[in-house]
Amino acid sequence: MGPHPAVAAIRLAVRRVLHDILNDHTSGEPGRRATGRHPEPTAERSPSPLVLVACSGGADSMALASALAFEAPRLGIRAGGVTIDHGLQAGSDLRADEVVLRLRELGLDPVESVAVTVGRDGGPEAAARDARYAALDAVSERHGAMAILLGHTRDDQAETVLLGLARGSGIRSLSGMAAVSGADGRYRRPFLQLDRQTARKACMVQSLPVWDDPHNADPAYTRSRLRHEGLPALEKALGKGVVEALARTAQLSRDDADALDTWARQAEGSVRDAAGLLECAKLYALPPAVRRRILRRAAIEAGAPAGALFARHIEEVDRLITGWRGQGAINLPGKVVAQRQGGRLVIRQG
Amino acid sequence: MGPHPAVAAIRLAVRRVLHDILNDHTSGEPGRRATGRHPEPTAERSPSPLVLVACSGGADSMALASALAFEAPRLGIRAGGVTIDHGLQAGSDLRADEVVLRLRELGLDPVESVAVTVGRDGGPEAAARDARYAALDAVSERHGAMAILLGHTRDDQAETVLLGLARGSGIRSLSGMAAVSGADGRYRRPFLQLDRQTARKACMVQSLPVWDDPHNADPAYTRSRLRHEGLPALEKALGKGVVEALARTAQLSRDDADALDTWARQAEGSVRDAAGLLECAKLYALPPAVRRRILRRAAIEAGAPAGALFARHIEEVDRLITGWRGQGAINLPGKVVAQRQGGRLVIRQG
Repeated sequence: MGPHPAVAAIRLAVRRVLHDILNDHTSGEPGRRATGRHPEPTAERSPSPLVLVACSGGADSMALASALAFEAPRLGIRAGGVTIDHGLQAGSDLRADEVVLRLRELGLDPVESVAVTVGRDGGPEAAARDARYAALDAVSERHGAMAILLGHTRDDQAETVLLGLARGSGIRSLSGMAAVSGADGRYRRPFLQLDRQTARKACMVQSLPVWDDPHNADPAYTRSRLRHEGLPALEKALGKGVVEALARTAQLSRDDADALDTWARQAEGSVRDAAGLLECAKLYALPPAVRRRILRRAAIEAGAPAGALFARHIEEVDRLITGWRGQGAINLPGKVVAQRQGGRLVIRQG
Repeated sequence: MGPHPAVAAIRLAVRRVLHDILNDHTSGEPGRRATGRHPEPTAERSPSPLVLVACSGGADSMALASALAFEAPRLGIRAGGVTIDHGLQAGSDLRADEVVLRLRELGLDPVESVAVTVGRDGGPEAAARDARYAALDAVSERHGAMAILLGHTRDDQAETVLLGLARGSGIRSLSGMAAVSGADGRYRRPFLQLDRQTARKACMVQSLPVWDDPHNADPAYTRSRLRHEGLPALEKALGKGVVEALARTAQLSRDDADALDTWARQAEGSVRDAAGLLECAKLYALPPAVRRRILRRAAIEAGAPAGALFARHIEEVDRLITGWRGQGAINLPGKVVAQRQGGRLVIRQG
């Protein structure tokens, strides 16, 4: 008798990603560990390559850890784990110690817990995320890991797309989380096409104790409100396929955004004059989607912070091209000023 | 004392669109009435140009009718109206007669009601829409109207984006309703950036009686569930700006989809061999977003019905290019078959 279908599903997802990692590692593609940037294993010991799992102790990442523990040895890979103590709740250090124990019980080695200090930049969720990834990057480099697996599921992806939608800032913000991200494609998300329910089920049938982060149910957090109220209401109105549709939208939007970014990068050279200034007539001839991407890039290059630059800013700059009636300079975030001068668009810090 | 802010807002929105219509009419741009395709007004009478409003008797289109009645004469435009009797409820003919009366009271002329027969194709909402636009097209041509105004608001747009999101078929389905659409840009939506609440308020302060279509609150309709449950829950989770964010997403997605369609059209010529067959190696070199659009166009050209062709179909065909391992022919809707033969992709009806 084979494993329970949920366990088979999580293992298959991890196996595929481990194959990808090995392939990339061999071919020097995205997942390759850049030689010289990370500590190389010493030639004497020549240990097998290491893949880490980032584990909070919740069902998604515990399921991921169990699948990694099962699949990695079969491919000659060492499986290790890391848990981050965000220090946001009393007893979070004990919690982290317990997760370390659980991961060791699964046979992972090395396993460690890292305590981080969460700042305030960008709100509590963003600050925790920044601290977490900085710590994961450091652990990965210290161990010379080939990759770090993250337990984000299709449900997390759907929530991320809706959060992006709420920003109303275009298709890049609809493209959710990438299956491969980070420096050298370090981060991998094997469960991005797997639903949360399957991960929970896999933990249950494997008798893995899981920890429910109280933050996940705290209505003070936008993502939690979305998970427990917004998305269920949307499913009730639109049908059960919404989560899958949102996840597919993420992938399609990502590809579209990548293609348009490529186009904008290529077109940028052709719309500058000999002095490197943007020519309004040539910008005018481009499709609006491409032109606005060039304008956005130019504003960021001039010093406007990307996070503060909204669609309405770019639209206003665009009207210097498409609706020219002698309007004055446009003020952008980061003290950047855009103005039209003699058929050229000048964007610079004022 | 000027008009109430809500009345000022609806009038401004209509005034802008009437200016656009006149400009387009003069310059021969999108809104131009194609000479010879519509009955021309006789030279003897030479009446002023006509703009119609499509009115259900609901708050949005009644507000639109009132604003058209006010603004049109000031621009030398005749304002007329049409209401469609879908025959879906007992007494719908009486309802239509009443709407005709209301529109006449506003000073519109001509005003007429048109009874249509709603079929079953594509579900009740799509069938009603098809019948409605066919009737509006006919009325527009019979009267030689320059344009027909539609009362869709920013809230309708947000709902349309969510409905498109639920299909998960990419950014074209996120692009909602266009401000200008139909043959020769016949349909105009002046209220696409105006919220429903403003339209209701404008009716109230002008003492215009409005009719609430019971369909709009009927939970049997997806849009109604979305309006009364899905969207409010999403606003509760994500904040009040959601409707505006969705409407802005529509505009950005539309521009992006247009640009990528243009790219795919241009690239298509360069990936065909002398016999007109698609060359796999050349397709492979394109960005996925462009390649998949070319594949989609080729499948539709070969006879696959656009509405039955889903993202997963195109992904499977795409794997003949990106993941070639000798797989067999792919069956697509409309008995269209895609297969790889000697480095060429052959897509034809089987």
